[in-house]
Amino acid sequence: MSTAYWIWYPGDFELYHAMKQNFSRIERGCGWPAFWKSEGFRNRVVFRKEYGLEKETAFCVYSKAVGYVLAGDRKYPFGERIVCGPGQIRISVHAACIETFPSVYIKGNVIYSDKTWQAEDYGAAPVMAGYSNHFTREEQNPSVWIYREKIYLPVSAEVCGDGILYGFETELTAVLEITYKKGYRPLRVYCGESREEALDREHCYYSWEPEPDTGRCPRCAVRYAYIPDCGEEEVEIKAVHQYVDIPVRARFVSSDKLINRIWSVAEHTFSLCSGIFFIDGIKRDKWIWGGDAYQSFFVNQYLMADADINRRTLLALRGNDPMTTHINTILDYTLYWILSIKIHHEAYNDLEFLEQVFPKMCSLMEFCESQLDGHGFIVGRKGDWIFIDWADLDKEGALCAEQMLFAECYKTMAVLGRCLGKETAVYTAYEKKYELLKNNINAFYWNSEKGAYIDSFSSGKNHVTRHGNIFAILFQIADKEKQEQIVENVLHNDAVPQITTPYFKFFEMDALCKMGYLEEVLIRIRQYWGGMLERGAVTFWEEYDPDVPEAEQYDMYGDKFGKSLCHAWSASPIYLLARYFVGLEITDPVKGGYELHPHLEYFDSLDCILPVGDKNIHVVWDGKELTEYTLC
Amino acid sequence: MSTAYWIWYPGDFELYHAMKQNFSRIERGCGWPAFWKSEGFRNRVVFRKEYGLEKETAFCVYSKAVGYVLAGDRKYPFGERIVCGPGQIRISVHAACIETFPSVYIKGNVIYSDKTWQAEDYGAAPVMAGYSNHFTREEQNPSVWIYREKIYLPVSAEVCGDGILYGFETELTAVLEITYKKGYRPLRVYCGESREEALDREHCYYSWEPEPDTGRCPRCAVRYAYIPDCGEEEVEIKAVHQYVDIPVRARFVSSDKLINRIWSVAEHTFSLCSGIFFIDGIKRDKWIWGGDAYQSFFVNQYLMADADINRRTLLALRGNDPMTTHINTILDYTLYWILSIKIHHEAYNDLEFLEQVFPKMCSLMEFCESQLDGHGFIVGRKGDWIFIDWADLDKEGALCAEQMLFAECYKTMAVLGRCLGKETAVYTAYEKKYELLKNNINAFYWNSEKGAYIDSFSSGKNHVTRHGNIFAILFQIADKEKQEQIVENVLHNDAVPQITTPYFKFFEMDALCKMGYLEEVLIRIRQYWGGMLERGAVTFWEEYDPDVPEAEQYDMYGDKFGKSLCHAWSASPIYLLARYFVGLEITDPVKGGYELHPHLEYFDSLDCILPVGDKNIHVVWDGKELTEYTLC
Repeated sequence: MSTAYWIWYPGDFELYHAMKQNFSRIERGCGWPAFWKSEGFRNRVVFRKEYGLEKETAFCVYSKAVGYVLAGDRKYPFGERIVCGPGQIRISVHAACIETFPSVYIKGNVIYSDKTWQAEDYGAAPVMAGYSNHFTREEQNPSVWIYREKIYLPVSAEVCGDGILYGFETELTAVLEITYKKGYRPLRVYCGESREEALDREHCYYSWEPEPDTGRCPRCAVRYAYIPDCGEEEVEIKAVHQYVDIPVRARFVSSDKLINRIWSVAEHTFSLCSGIFFIDGIKRDKWIWGGDAYQSFFVNQYLMADADINRRTLLALRGNDPMTTHINTILDYTLYWILSIKIHHEAYNDLEFLEQVFPKMCSLMEFCESQLDGHGFIVGRKGDWIFIDWADLDKEGALCAEQMLFAECYKTMAVLGRCLGKETAVYTAYEKKYELLKNNINAFYWNSEKGAYIDSFSSGKNHVTRHGNIFAILFQIADKEKQEQIVENVLHNDAVPQITTPYFKFFEMDALCKMGYLEEVLIRIRQYWGGMLERGAVTFWEEYDPDVPEAEQYDMYGDKFGKSLCHAWSASPIYLLARYFVGLEITDPVKGGYELHPHLEYFDSLDCILPVGDKNIHVVWDGKELTEYTLC
Repeated sequence: MSTAYWIWYPGDFELYHAMKQNFSRIERGCGWPAFWKSEGFRNRVVFRKEYGLEKETAFCVYSKAVGYVLAGDRKYPFGERIVCGPGQIRISVHAACIETFPSVYIKGNVIYSDKTWQAEDYGAAPVMAGYSNHFTREEQNPSVWIYREKIYLPVSAEVCGDGILYGFETELTAVLEITYKKGYRPLRVYCGESREEALDREHCYYSWEPEPDTGRCPRCAVRYAYIPDCGEEEVEIKAVHQYVDIPVRARFVSSDKLINRIWSVAEHTFSLCSGIFFIDGIKRDKWIWGGDAYQSFFVNQYLMADADINRRTLLALRGNDPMTTHINTILDYTLYWILSIKIHHEAYNDLEFLEQVFPKMCSLMEFCESQLDGHGFIVGRKGDWIFIDWADLDKEGALCAEQMLFAECYKTMAVLGRCLGKETAVYTAYEKKYELLKNNINAFYWNSEKGAYIDSFSSGKNHVTRHGNIFAILFQIADKEKQEQIVENVLHNDAVPQITTPYFKFFEMDALCKMGYLEEVLIRIRQYWGGMLERGAVTFWEEYDPDVPEAEQYDMYGDKFGKSLCHAWSASPIYLLARYFVGLEITDPVKGGYELHPHLEYFDSLDCILPVGDKNIHVVWDGKELTEYTLC
């Protein structure tokens, strides 16, 4: 028997689990569900497949939904052995559920459930059923994701005031479990990403009273745990770290110990933020954000090369048609979704997925095109969030950086439309729109006096920031000459305010790498990410400003411990090191094709493994000789 | 303190409970969820209201959802007493839930939840919060409808084979409860709407093994219950009838005992089919159908005059925007939805509700207009069900009866648009479309040779059925002269096949009443509905054909007990008797205005009560004098 899968209407699994994820944030006792349109799975679906049976065969349908099986013209309840054939037979499995998405598992030698089944929701044409490699056994329940677990004991226990502060070796997403050595009594456990947070009973994010029966607290981010009014002789504590097992396939070992440590901490940060979906941070927001995920797709490609988490995250972000609001309410995050598909496709050549989401890409573009101004520039509607970065951008009228992203979306649509063999008219229309928009951007936003793109042409302020100019390099809106000017007038110009988030820092580093400034990037990585390590980071932070004194370093959004200390968007050194320093470019993910242009001049030695398709490439540089191995 | 209500995003309550209703059908052990697009409630909403507080006040928010309260710029968890004021303050209540719709209850002297709160779903502009008169207490859960209960003991117990057949005085929607006089042992209870069904263990719809702990079976339609392999000394049985308490306000007592009995059985039938929503039948389908509901709105007006069940049913049927499929997949049922709003509005002058649903009426009409042919006639798309009736209609091309309904929709949109004071352009556009369509119907479908409307003009068959011609009278598509011809050539023409469903029988009777053939209608009511009584009906049936022998009378859809014996659409004599014989026409539901044109010639005496707005009208005719009283 081939593998049978639990099947559902495609996207339902992701939308359901995304809501669980996006509604899981808690802040000092208040549930804080994500503040954007959270969309439903379907409640009534039917799965169909027709078989030409050579002989009699039997199968059984498992489901927790309400429904029945129609085999030919006979009805059967779920859980009953059904015998049919030989001959042509059409099987329909009807399923309805309110609390979660309907899913079914069909077990049999010939008749079994997989993606070859069609799913219908009575609202649109039939589509290929959704499935996951994680749900292949009849006793499973696709509405419940069972995490892997690993036990961590504290590495330190310190008397603080009238209580004990426990420390773990690193940050975890864990269920804390208390054992009462002298019998149960009510206690409260204060968790912290930092020692300071755990000890601050007023301002720490998470505090719990363990369940009396089990001694367990809810799953949350924790590095330190403080139990006031308690002696060490009274309790034992352990952390049950719960995670999705996505194996790290890459390894980076160089002669540069600081860079090695940065890679290692970035890897841990990224792994913690890679669960069912790519989330921003494990303490906060625990939400699926399109911009954050976009960067995670870059890192994933070189670290885990796991296509599944990409697909889950992309489906969760996009939601259902029709689109009425921007992804996470943010215009730029909507645009990153299109660009993310491109990154995903370049990494995995995932035509099946591409075919599945192409209609949603088209409808997303149509939605965006409903908000163009007279020049074809995309502008925010009331309620749209024009984000780009936590920075002082001149957001009057159409913002330059958004146009850069939008132009790249047009280009992506054209490229992927060609890939899928869509009608010529489809992709040539996108190509024309791309050229037009690109020309208009250069006409309206390029300021030759400043030798840079300005944020806004309508405000009259001619305000220059790094953001749009970085995109102009990354997306080649600027020609070679303009690119050189941007480096001089913007990137190497201290008068233009520095980027303060690791988020946009990544785009800046990427642009500098593309322009060949590798040494500068290496220095900056050592300074910026190394700076966090000097401050005691075991995971990389949401934001880091070297000028902020240590006493205030966890402060953000006007909240003493508001900063997330484990934030996916700060793991980008992995991508930069792999892509530009080891110099691996994936050219054919299916056949394992790649090009290697390493920059060995920055290292005395290198011993790195990077994934390409199903294979791993092992690169060894001993200071004299470079060797490449392909590992299967 | 004024009444506080549980509030939710408008429509969510109805969509949630509608799914529970539409997924509740069971047929011989198979769950049979309704086969149409079943749409979700929202999962993430926010409720907002701003207060100008004269002094300090306190309130508390109750909810089972995940979320928090924002009062000014401070956050509070649910369940916590919040003190604020004096001064201007904006309160936002954020709520998320996956399994059911988010709802909140806000309790306080000044700050409390009701329809004056705004609800947002992050997808559309804020709207007035949804609420129900049934949910006004903090300890309630709007996801759970608690039914009223009434205990019925069996009126007969008869040994049949090795078991006992229990009979109840009438049909019920009940939980059967078994008491084991000699201790529990596994038993199976077979339920029937008829004696024959309960005794037929193979073909009866519902059979249950009572819960060992409670002896209870699931709620279902039951008049007879058979327990095989069981003696009367072993068990006791009772039926816990579960119902929504919608008081009957009308009374009909005349000198005609058969007509009195018909009214009484129709009233019981209708009450059983009036739960949270108007459903078609209590054994089958237990679904909310737009066509069936349309007729229920007519009866409700004269029997219970309960506006709430109308609103719940209308919101449940319509679902969310955008509309992509027809209500219940049936084109005509989509059109009845518009006409139902008109009936509702005529009965209750419900401007608040009308304002709420008008945008959905407009988008429904736009959806319909996406499937017009070159003449402006509405035609089915692939997968659309063109129903009209279980009858032999010539459905090639655009069907006449659908155009009649569609024209009436245009007229309704114009009338209700005026009522709401919408822009002139809105309703005049509908008026123009109405005139055009009406003229086209008369040009294409009127066959002067036959003196009747034909089903299809494109088939060339010139097929005449009663259906379109009945609508031509009801909706005044036909002028006076044509109406007279229709009566002669169609309604009084035995060569045109008779209507076989009480469903369309109602439209026919209504048309005959409008044309003044009251005596004929009275005879037909006595014959047709009286015929069911002669066959032992205690509730009226889904279908009745006097020519079918008794042995086959419960057969339908090729199923021995497929016919529903308690079907709402057969309760229409209530409307006909009240509207045309007692002759009460409601002219102003708000002020209680009405006109009375009784036809006393058919009765020696009458003693009837009928609702008009908040008042009841008592009409007494003693054979000599007619007296009207208004009861408050």
